[in-house]
Amino acid sequence: MVSIDISEIDLQWIQVLSEGWAPPLKGFMREREYLQCLNFGLLVDEGVQNHTIPIVLAITDEDKKRLNGETKVALKYQDNFVAILEYIEIYEHRKEERVAAVFKTTTTGHPYIKMIAQMGDWLLGGDLHVIDRIQWNDGLDCYRLTPKEIQQRLKQMKADAVFAFQLRNPIHNGHALLMQDTRRQLLANGYCNPVLLLHPLGGWTKSDDVPLNVRISQHKAVLDEGVLDPKTTLMAIFPSPMTYAGPREVQWHAKARQVAGANFYIVGRDPAGLPHPDIPGEDLYEPTHGTKVLQMAPGLNDIEIIPFRVAAYNKQLKRMTFYDPNNHSDFEFISGTKMRNFAKQGQTPP
Amino acid sequence: MVSIDISEIDLQWIQVLSEGWAPPLKGFMREREYLQCLNFGLLVDEGVQNHTIPIVLAITDEDKKRLNGETKVALKYQDNFVAILEYIEIYEHRKEERVAAVFKTTTTGHPYIKMIAQMGDWLLGGDLHVIDRIQWNDGLDCYRLTPKEIQQRLKQMKADAVFAFQLRNPIHNGHALLMQDTRRQLLANGYCNPVLLLHPLGGWTKSDDVPLNVRISQHKAVLDEGVLDPKTTLMAIFPSPMTYAGPREVQWHAKARQVAGANFYIVGRDPAGLPHPDIPGEDLYEPTHGTKVLQMAPGLNDIEIIPFRVAAYNKQLKRMTFYDPNNHSDFEFISGTKMRNFAKQGQTPP
Repeated sequence: MVSIDISEIDLQWIQVLSEGWAPPLKGFMREREYLQCLNFGLLVDEGVQNHTIPIVLAITDEDKKRLNGETKVALKYQDNFVAILEYIEIYEHRKEERVAAVFKTTTTGHPYIKMIAQMGDWLLGGDLHVIDRIQWNDGLDCYRLTPKEIQQRLKQMKADAVFAFQLRNPIHNGHALLMQDTRRQLLANGYCNPVLLLHPLGGWTKSDDVPLNVRISQHKAVLDEGVLDPKTTLMAIFPSPMTYAGPREVQWHAKARQVAGANFYIVGRDPAGLPHPDIPGEDLYEPTHGTKVLQMAPGLNDIEIIPFRVAAYNKQLKRMTFYDPNNHSDFEFISGTKMRNFAKQGQTPP
Repeated sequence: MVSIDISEIDLQWIQVLSEGWAPPLKGFMREREYLQCLNFGLLVDEGVQNHTIPIVLAITDEDKKRLNGETKVALKYQDNFVAILEYIEIYEHRKEERVAAVFKTTTTGHPYIKMIAQMGDWLLGGDLHVIDRIQWNDGLDCYRLTPKEIQQRLKQMKADAVFAFQLRNPIHNGHALLMQDTRRQLLANGYCNPVLLLHPLGGWTKSDDVPLNVRISQHKAVLDEGVLDPKTTLMAIFPSPMTYAGPREVQWHAKARQVAGANFYIVGRDPAGLPHPDIPGEDLYEPTHGTKVLQMAPGLNDIEIIPFRVAAYNKQLKRMTFYDPNNHSDFEFISGTKMRNFAKQGQTPP
């Protein structure tokens, strides 16, 4: 069988597809699915399902020639056969069209667009079958639960409401307050055992983001210290790469958690946001758009969106509380820069 | 009341909105509608409705300042008050985001993007009320029928099937063959009186397109000569500007005709296509995408899409027939260039 070499990010998407995070996709997108995703942010052939991020496999001209007449192909990562793609279909990788539709910009200053620019000019769709479960052997595979495994764990924990929190950064006090408060609200609304799905993203992130192993250690410390209650928290790693696609990325994050059985999704303040790569001082995505678009998105009917509430240090109460604009002067906002300064000066942040 | 000056294209969109071509819009888009349009190509608040082209009113910083605290504004075209916008809402005109999402490119070499680049940095949404019906006093207003008027005419004509043909070019023999053949097919399928809605676009087009008055004269000649049967054809002008937005434009064209009562929509071979402004020899939109996307588009359930069939001059039969790839050598393709050469040399095209 003809084989083609795939990249680390391709393998991450193979994990996403093979573990069932992206239904109804059976493999890398065919043109029909790709066009639906680009044009509507939906897949519409088996009922309307939200799907905003193209999950595609780029191949080169040369690969395309070698695949001439083939109906299936073996996918090879670092000399290991990891999967077979069947009933394959090759179509044009129209990059400008793709990145404009997905990222709403075409600048290669954007970290994922930069990678797309270096990919092959064709896309290879087909039905995916993995040889073995995808593993990374980095000591963290035990946290890489499939949607089904998460559902089983949640059942064992007797959760009657599941609220998911996506993050790709260390947990700070504002996050913790939000998660604690969400549980409190769900209890007040009559749920008996709301469980937090603490679900850090585990795939590719840009080089200046905090590495996964560091983040997992930090999350474990937060659980060990009881800031989040281990009895009502399930920590797992979401195997998807990060594409930094603003409102589209936010929808993908919510969809995948809906698939894993979450009923509530806490959306960040500027979810999947980035500074504009070409315009200093400007955001690439308007910070409120992620939440607004997510709340209107078709095909996410089984998950309720909980918008982020801003937390800040309350100087009166001497602890983090939700920000109240009527008492603005009581609050001190602790930015990342301020945090780094505390750390440099050896001070403990409030 | 504060007033702002609007452009000719703004007035064309006012005609579109006020005549009811773009339901459920009640006026220029508010941010909520705009975000749905950009992100899903749909409006989702009153059931899922296809809507792919932003219908927005751009205003300047200065206009925005003058509107501070106002709830309504008068819209003025060439010193005449033409409409009032009520319960207004101002939001950011994030141009890069808009053009990337809609046109799948950001190059100002694209004729509509070029205009957007020159527009104001804010968008003004609100409920629209026109003072009088929009008229252009160019001798063609009698053809500018509203969707309701078209429906009435079709009823008077006792149409039991309506097939719409959008065009922004003169009718050539290939078009005529297609329209005749569609009628024939509908008759064969049991309809008794299929009526053609011949519906040339009447709003702004790029400067090298054939002007509206010339096209209407040509269309009238085609009807007078009986190439199309006047008894089963309703000619009207579609007041929308052309935005050259590829698959999004195609959906807008189909939606508006669905609103006017068409049951069938003939889609062109490379509908709303353009050469890529920056890459010589390349199409901006893949020619088959328009039809593919249109056939999958949510919210267009009341109109059936009839894909274009390529017609060419059959040298055996000495007339235009549908192209048959099995007898390729029998056919001569008559391009626009060839047509212009026939004209230059005073020859009658076949």
